[in-house]
Amino acid sequence: MKDLNTLGINAKEASYDLGIASTTEKNNALELMAQALLNNKEEIINENKKDLEVAVQKGTSKAMLDRLALNEERIEGMAKGLRDLISLDDPVGEVIEMWKRPNGLQIGKQRVAMGVVGIIYEARPNVTCDAAGLCLKTGNAVILRGGSEAINSNKAIVNILTEAVKEAGLPENSIQLVEDTSRETATKMMKLNEYIDVLIPRGGAGLIQAVVKNATVPIIETGVGNCHIYVDENCDFEMAKNIIVNAKVSRPSVCNAAEKMLINENIADEFLPLIVNALRENDVEIIGDDKVQAIINDVTAATEEDWSKEYLDYIIGAKIVKNLDDAITHINKYGSGHSEAIVTESYKNSQKFLNKVNAAAVYVNASTRFTDGAEFGFGAEIGISTQKLHARGPMGLKELTTIKYIIYGNGQIR
Amino acid sequence: MKDLNTLGINAKEASYDLGIASTTEKNNALELMAQALLNNKEEIINENKKDLEVAVQKGTSKAMLDRLALNEERIEGMAKGLRDLISLDDPVGEVIEMWKRPNGLQIGKQRVAMGVVGIIYEARPNVTCDAAGLCLKTGNAVILRGGSEAINSNKAIVNILTEAVKEAGLPENSIQLVEDTSRETATKMMKLNEYIDVLIPRGGAGLIQAVVKNATVPIIETGVGNCHIYVDENCDFEMAKNIIVNAKVSRPSVCNAAEKMLINENIADEFLPLIVNALRENDVEIIGDDKVQAIINDVTAATEEDWSKEYLDYIIGAKIVKNLDDAITHINKYGSGHSEAIVTESYKNSQKFLNKVNAAAVYVNASTRFTDGAEFGFGAEIGISTQKLHARGPMGLKELTTIKYIIYGNGQIR
Repeated sequence: MKDLNTLGINAKEASYDLGIASTTEKNNALELMAQALLNNKEEIINENKKDLEVAVQKGTSKAMLDRLALNEERIEGMAKGLRDLISLDDPVGEVIEMWKRPNGLQIGKQRVAMGVVGIIYEARPNVTCDAAGLCLKTGNAVILRGGSEAINSNKAIVNILTEAVKEAGLPENSIQLVEDTSRETATKMMKLNEYIDVLIPRGGAGLIQAVVKNATVPIIETGVGNCHIYVDENCDFEMAKNIIVNAKVSRPSVCNAAEKMLINENIADEFLPLIVNALRENDVEIIGDDKVQAIINDVTAATEEDWSKEYLDYIIGAKIVKNLDDAITHINKYGSGHSEAIVTESYKNSQKFLNKVNAAAVYVNASTRFTDGAEFGFGAEIGISTQKLHARGPMGLKELTTIKYIIYGNGQIR
Repeated sequence: MKDLNTLGINAKEASYDLGIASTTEKNNALELMAQALLNNKEEIINENKKDLEVAVQKGTSKAMLDRLALNEERIEGMAKGLRDLISLDDPVGEVIEMWKRPNGLQIGKQRVAMGVVGIIYEARPNVTCDAAGLCLKTGNAVILRGGSEAINSNKAIVNILTEAVKEAGLPENSIQLVEDTSRETATKMMKLNEYIDVLIPRGGAGLIQAVVKNATVPIIETGVGNCHIYVDENCDFEMAKNIIVNAKVSRPSVCNAAEKMLINENIADEFLPLIVNALRENDVEIIGDDKVQAIINDVTAATEEDWSKEYLDYIIGAKIVKNLDDAITHINKYGSGHSEAIVTESYKNSQKFLNKVNAAAVYVNASTRFTDGAEFGFGAEIGISTQKLHARGPMGLKELTTIKYIIYGNGQIR
């Protein structure tokens, strides 16, 4: 088992060649990686069984077991994910702008690979393959630290992918796994500034907070979404209803699902019964403030904590607000800066909402569920950033690159 | 004296209005800020004298006293700096790209203010004004934490600027100073994730490392430059000499000054005496490897530590390398990722150097001294980033902004 420092040195070394590999070389590697997964399904499934056995013995929940499990279909999905990357534009090498200075210096701003990307994630072994593919396509060496629950699956996947990368003529240390899944080693990884250029945590709020608190390596914070839908006075009720139901019910466990609805007080009497009915038909529990409780029966009283909560469940918080300003103040105070929506027919209010709401994605008349790399048209996604530095919102291939200034001179001195 | 949390709450609050202030409003404030400085020169100079007296009593070095001192000319320089910002393009609000998805959603990527910027810096009180101006122009509320040596000067400057901001009708908490200059409070500021969106340290390596190690707030690492000039076999000796002398001597104390020269072994016998002569004429001390010592007399032997060192002085490290690959390997191993240059007439080698060297700015046939916001044409600079996340190289106004996705729908659900 290689120690973390060795992984770091290896990754840095690999990153130099991988960073300047041609798109053709990288696409060839992705195809070989996909084929290798398909040719070794059985091995992966066998190793995954070992993980599942341990998990069952530990009394792991059914939902967790499902996240951990790999079958033929899921492996085919992983291979397809790698092949989908092939057709995407390679951001590396693009000169975004180039200008000439009065002294004749020509300065170009070029997109280049980050170098070494670290990913810390939890039980789902398909993240291993996704992250490896995204990093390879963008010329980044990757150090993967998955959860201990999936260690056998992850080892098998990384071995298979690494063989394919080698066969493609790219550095074998382009993809490496931290086999020591102790918490100690994870914390050490968060401080490996010498070798890791950026660290991306993928997982629950606990994991992300641990990384935010402990990392000295630059990180990209992902994930938490306490998303609101504000229903303005002047709006199409049918549209508002459809958007809220969709944003809450289509997939309650994801970060772009709506967690709160804010209703303008002038339409509350009319709209609230309508939306509550529609939500209850979909088994959604309503938690509300006093005013909501005055209009609707059987509503659980919302506590102060509720307004900041991400339920990730069939629960929605409801609040009646005086007006748009009131809604914006509430969102900027309690929101997590992920995705926020207004439903309105007022031009003025739509512009005000877009302007004043402080979030990665701000919607007029659409469901928050569109905050997603694929839905934005990025083709691939490494996560959804809720921080403001470097990347905000869905992160595609470009967000896994940095820039470098290339300067052509003919002897200029200052 | 307001505590740090209060400053944070105030700044966040101010950032909402300041972030959407118009360019005209912000430019008006900058003009009033410049006028206020000029109208209150005497007060600033008086407060600065208090700082200087304390510093003299403490036995502060002459160089440090010079950094701390303000006079009429320096205050006029600060005012000019603010006025120079007026003519620069305001990046806030620009929609960089906008596209339409198959479902009709229109997605725009818009530049917006970061929110709250924290700046931690050392003795120079003019940074207070520079940073305040840059943040105001980009719609960011700023929390300034300068060194204790300059506390009276900083208080005076911030009070004067704040009055002007208020007069301009912008939030008075747009610019705030941390008056408690204890180390404890600085450390607390580095962890103020709830209120600070990005923290930028400006100062020596010690300060920057303290911030890197302690901050949980996203930071931008700035500054350290161990810059190399590689002199290729096939090059114009006169050009190489001029570039090295300029990069070393024009201002040795800054981060874009050259600290090392790498000479191709095939030209070392001829070029080395020539460049060493020119450097010694400028009182530069030469530190070299065995091979350099074999050619040149009175060269101090370089230790392993020397190759990583930033001298910021009239000292240069010299090394003879086998070839371009050898030079690139050395640079990527020991460089700080700031600015690196090759002097060559070989097309192939110029391209290879630009491609393979891992640094913020990579030059062909020009001095590393051009890595600077003004020299790049950015008009203003908040620092030079040596990290890869968010910003790399000189940071201008754009680097003080983030993005937000604005999405126009007509009822889309997923």
